[in-house]
Order: sequence, then structure tokens, then C-alpha cells
Amino acid sequence: MTIVPEQLTAASIPTRDEIFDAHRGGKLSTGLTASLSDARDLAIAYTPGVADVSRAIATDPALVARYTWTDRLVAVVSDGTAVLGLGDIGPRAALPVMEGKSALFKTFGGLDSIPIVLDTTDVDEIVETLVRLRPSFGAVNLEDISAPRCFELEAKLIEALDCPVMHDDQHGTAIVLLAALRGACAVDGRELSSLKIVISGAGAAGVACAKILLAAGARDVVVLDSRGILTPERGGIKAELAEITNPRRVAGGVAEALAGADVFVGLSSATLPEELLASMAPRGMVFALSNPDPEVHPEVAARYASIVATGRSDFPNQINNVLAFPGVFRGALDAGARRITERMKLAAADAIFSVARDDLAADRIVPSPFDPRVAPAVAAAVAAAVDAE
Amino acid sequence: MTIVPEQLTAASIPTRDEIFDAHRGGKLSTGLTASLSDARDLAIAYTPGVADVSRAIATDPALVARYTWTDRLVAVVSDGTAVLGLGDIGPRAALPVMEGKSALFKTFGGLDSIPIVLDTTDVDEIVETLVRLRPSFGAVNLEDISAPRCFELEAKLIEALDCPVMHDDQHGTAIVLLAALRGACAVDGRELSSLKIVISGAGAAGVACAKILLAAGARDVVVLDSRGILTPERGGIKAELAEITNPRRVAGGVAEALAGADVFVGLSSATLPEELLASMAPRGMVFALSNPDPEVHPEVAARYASIVATGRSDFPNQINNVLAFPGVFRGALDAGARRITERMKLAAADAIFSVARDDLAADRIVPSPFDPRVAPAVAAAVAAAVDAE
Repeated sequence: MTIVPEQLTAASIPTRDEIFDAHRGGKLSTGLTASLSDARDLAIAYTPGVADVSRAIATDPALVARYTWTDRLVAVVSDGTAVLGLGDIGPRAALPVMEGKSALFKTFGGLDSIPIVLDTTDVDEIVETLVRLRPSFGAVNLEDISAPRCFELEAKLIEALDCPVMHDDQHGTAIVLLAALRGACAVDGRELSSLKIVISGAGAAGVACAKILLAAGARDVVVLDSRGILTPERGGIKAELAEITNPRRVAGGVAEALAGADVFVGLSSATLPEELLASMAPRGMVFALSNPDPEVHPEVAARYASIVATGRSDFPNQINNVLAFPGVFRGALDAGARRITERMKLAAADAIFSVARDDLAADRIVPSPFDPRVAPAVAAAVAAAVDAE
Repeated sequence: MTIVPEQLTAASIPTRDEIFDAHRGGKLSTGLTASLSDARDLAIAYTPGVADVSRAIATDPALVARYTWTDRLVAVVSDGTAVLGLGDIGPRAALPVMEGKSALFKTFGGLDSIPIVLDTTDVDEIVETLVRLRPSFGAVNLEDISAPRCFELEAKLIEALDCPVMHDDQHGTAIVLLAALRGACAVDGRELSSLKIVISGAGAAGVACAKILLAAGARDVVVLDSRGILTPERGGIKAELAEITNPRRVAGGVAEALAGADVFVGLSSATLPEELLASMAPRGMVFALSNPDPEVHPEVAARYASIVATGRSDFPNQINNVLAFPGVFRGALDAGARRITERMKLAAADAIFSVARDDLAADRIVPSPFDPRVAPAVAAAVAAAVDAE
């Protein structure tokens, strides 16, 4: 398998000046759905006309979804504690990323979106703040919030808010990984349930990937972090995860985990030495998802594995969350869902796989992020999964 | 003086169906300042390019103003406790009004704006919430918050936030009233300092109007509410106001206040009987600003007064806040102001009056809300008043 850069060549990589110029003044703006050009427009959109609409909502609060933008508005919420690979850089420095995320919601999901960056990292304060803000939006996309706080925060928010809430760093990644693994299985004639899967990294993405793979039928999943393969003696969510994974009770570190494994999923910044790759079973699958530096260079991985994927746009098989989150939120909002359930996430992964299936190959296990069929397919599948509940 | 409807005729008044249709899906949307149409765009606006911008802001937080939309973003904040004339109808029912306000900021001030409606009416909780949200916006327009809570809330927010904060129901109204009164004085050859002014209503707008008129040089201002002319024995802000107004120590109610007065400013829903109008001094000025029903019909007022103004778009001399707030916030944000000061408000009123001065008449004491010269003139004057501090 030859790896060739798919979309970005070295020459087309944006310069630093170009990046800063493009960010001047920010990346978002607000607009009107109808212009206000005369007194009559004003009398409809503002006083006195708007009073009729306000009175109607006061009588029947459910009408707020019909007569305001909240029904299609996603708040992209971050406290800036785990921004890209940059760590805890705070809410102000996180804002350009959140503006970018809101721009992706609009471009790929047709959803309006506003970034909300919070000057607190206290989980209960964040929950309290979003409860107070609840009438202002229709759904919450949590973003770049550090683990393990992100697990507690998401769980508490799902309880506290009567609207879709999803931490994309967890579930967006998990949905696209599952879709890609289904694609890889289809290319290679394998079954998810028969694969030995190793997940390196037990942060937001690692935990969610392990859970969705188990929910989708995987049986042999081993999760490890910098301290080695998770054991029930570890605390919190890692102990929980140890209980439901590692059925062969493998002990040790990445070497022990990878020996004879079929799938490597890299979600930490730890590098993967070539000799460990060589210890995997034949026809291996390598998902080296760390950004910007994959755990192993895809050209090296391709010497040992039949399927190689990364998180980067300059190699084939990009595992990009944008394949999932716009359609997931669009489907949830379209269907009036109050929660995003495991069933909806599985339906999203199936929908992404369905789009890829028409044109599967070892270097096309997922659709391109710009494939216009993806978001509508995901939205429809997610909405149908809501209706089925 | 003949009163003819200026802009809206009965036939052109929007129907209820038309109003609800126009509100379907809300009045706002978010957009991108540049499209995301290929992998290169994505690499600039999102990963990996955005990381350079985030790192720069992490190093120098002041850069957030240059590289995000916050520098031109106004949060329109309400708890829904005093919405239009509808009272405490809650945050959801308030949202269509706030969307309309955000639309006005965009149309008239060229500022982006998002509505934030809060599911709490506790002043300290609102302050706490906005402090946590602070990195998300550049300025706060408070809207439709009940008195006397609005005074405490605004004062606490101004202390807590290092950005422009203004309760428009107070100061927007006050600025435009002052501009209109300057216009009326110019038409009639009168001096503000020599006028006997009666303000009926001691809510958000009444208090702010009294204060700005005094700051602008008025000497004889009498304020009354439903219990009569304010006295120092009244509580809170009303006692404060009583101390600085009513120099002739008039006692009683609206009849006593109006006898021999030059100016009536109506900011309550109390009707003004014709016989009291008749008791005013010759060449009176009547500002019957209650909406939708003025304290006295402008045709009746015109029998006794030489200048008549209302809050309505279907009569001349509309006292409309939209003449002030877009330019006030635009000027404050353009100049990087941390506060909106009394000096900036006076400058805004002068700027509105300057635009009207070219074409003053008894039925043109303020510019039309659609006069495109107003917001830039106000913004420039407000920014200059910041620089002068």
C-alpha cells in the first residue's frame, strides 16, 4: 500500500501570516433572516409586532422552538482546559477553535452555532451556568474539556438539561472510528466481533471509543494509558473501563497489548515503535490518530498493516469528527430529541459507513470530510433512531 | 400643528399572520466571514492552523480582541422580567424581542449580537453568570429587566465586567429624549436650563431621563410615579432622585406637577387628562412615550402643546432607542472603552441632535430611525468622548 498525500501538498500548506490574516476580526458573524429596511419591517420584527409572538410563547412555552432560532442553535461550550494538543490554555485562547467549530456546524450541518467560552473550570459552576443559559440555545456541544472532568461534566449536563448534549472529543471521535473500522472490516472481509483491538490512550476519546466499539459488537478491546493496560485497581472511569474490557486479562504495557493484536487505535501522543507494529497479527489495522503527529508515520505503518488511518488531512483515511457531529446534532434537533443516546451514535456510525460503502478501498474506508452526502445521511439516521425510541 | 401618520398607515399595519410567519425559525442566523470549501480552508480556520492563533492568544490574551469576533459582539441580555409592556413573561417569551434587538444592532450598528436569555431573576446570579461568560463577548446590552432590580444589576455588572455595559431601557431612552428636547428647544428658541420639566414614571427610563437631563443642564425637573411627586421619604433610588430634583418642592400629584410646566415626559402607562394639559405653560412640549398607547393622543396634545412626540412609528417625532444604542455600542467598542460613561451618553445625544439640526421643524425634532447618518455620527461622538477621558 502506497501512501500519497491526498489533499494538501507541502506547497499548499497555509503560511503563518495567511492563518493570522484569516483570523483577523474572527471567523463568525450574526445575520438576519429578513432585512429591516423600513418602518413596516421594524413593526414586524420588533415593536409592536413582536409582542404578539412573545405573548404566544408566554402562553405556550413550547412555541419558543418554532418562533426563535433556538431550534437550530448549538452552543459550542469550552472552558479551554484541553484545547487541541495545546492543553489548558484558557477560555480566551480556546475561542478561535470554538469559532472554527461553530463555522463547521454551519457549513456541514446547516445549523447556527455560537461559541460560549467560560471563565470557570469548576464542573458544578459550568453546569449551573448552562442551566441558567438554557433558554438561549437548543443543544450543547462540549469541546476541549480535560479528562476526567469531561466525563462528570457531560453526565451532569445530560441530567440537568432537557436538550441534546454531547462532548464531541469523546463521541464524535468514537462514532467516526467505528464507521472507519466497519469500512476496514468490509474491505478486508473481517468481523468486528473477531478483532483483537488495542486502544492507546484513556482520555476523552479513548474511553468513548472503547465503549462504542463494545456497544457495536467488539469483544476483545484492551485499553492502556501511560501507566500500562488498565486494571480494576485504577481509579474512577479507568477502573470501570477495566471491568468491561480486556477479557483475556492481558497484563503489562503496550508491548504485551499489541502482541498478536489486529487493530491499534492511537489516541495519546505516545509514539509507537516499529518493532511493536511488527508484533501485531497479519493484516493489521493501524489508526494513528494523534494530531498533528501520529503515533507512527503512516508510511511506516503501511509496511506492517493492511489498513492505515490518521487524523490528518494530508493522508488517506482521515478520521475527522466533522463526519459525525454536524449530522448528529442536526438529526437530534430535527427530531426534537431531548438526549443523544448510544443508539443514535451507533446509527450515525452506520450512516457514515453506508456512504463510504459505495466506493470502499484500503485507502477509502471513510468518506472525505467534504462528501456532501455524509451530514444528511447521518442526520436522517440519527433522527430515525430518535423516533424509534 | 397637524398630526399625520408619517410612516405606517392603517392599511400597511402588519397582520397577525404576517407577524407569526416572519418569526418562524427566528430572526437571526450565524454566518462565516470566509467560506470553508476545501481542505486548505479547513487547515486555516480549524486544525492545524488555528493552533497558531490559540497559542498567540495564550501568550498575549489581549490578542483575543484582534483574532476573534468578540471585539464587535454585543450580548443582548434579559431575564424576561419587564418585556415591552407585557411585564414578567419569562426568558423564553422574551427571546423574540432579544432576537429583534440583536437584529437592530446588526442593521443599524454593523455589530454582531447574540441574545442571552437567563433562567434566573436573581441579580447576583445574573452577575455571576455574565462574569463566567465574559470571554465570550465584547459588550453587554441589558434589556427588559424590571425596576428597581435593573439599577442594582447594572451597577454591579459595571463593577464586575471590564467591558461596556448599558441597560438600554434606561440610557437609550434617556439619550434620545435629551436629543429630542435639544431639538425642540432649538425649534422654539428655548433653553433647557429654563424649562420646567415633569417626568411621569420613576421606572428604568424615568430615572435615567431625570439624571441625563440634570447632567445636560436642566434645573427644574419634577419626577412622579403612581404615588405622586417623589419625596425624600420614599425608599431607594426614588429617595435619591427626590434629593436631586424638584427644586421648587412641589408637593402632590400630576395636577400639581403639571400646573405651569413647560415639558411633560410620559414614561408610565398613566393617561394624561386633557384638562391637565391645559394647565401647562404656553408653548408646551409633550413627550407621551408609553407604547403602544401614549399617555395622551398626539392629536389631543397638539391642541395645547407646540411640540408633541411619542414612541410610535406612526406619528412624527418618534423617540426610538434605535437612534442611540447601535452607535453608542459601536463607538464604545471601536474605541476599546471599558465603560459607558455619562460623558459618552451626553455626546451621543449631541450627535443625534446634530444630525437633526440640518432640517429641524416642530414635527422633525429627531432624525428618522432610518436616517443612515445617525449611527455613524453617534459612534464617532461616543468614541471621541472615550478618547477624551
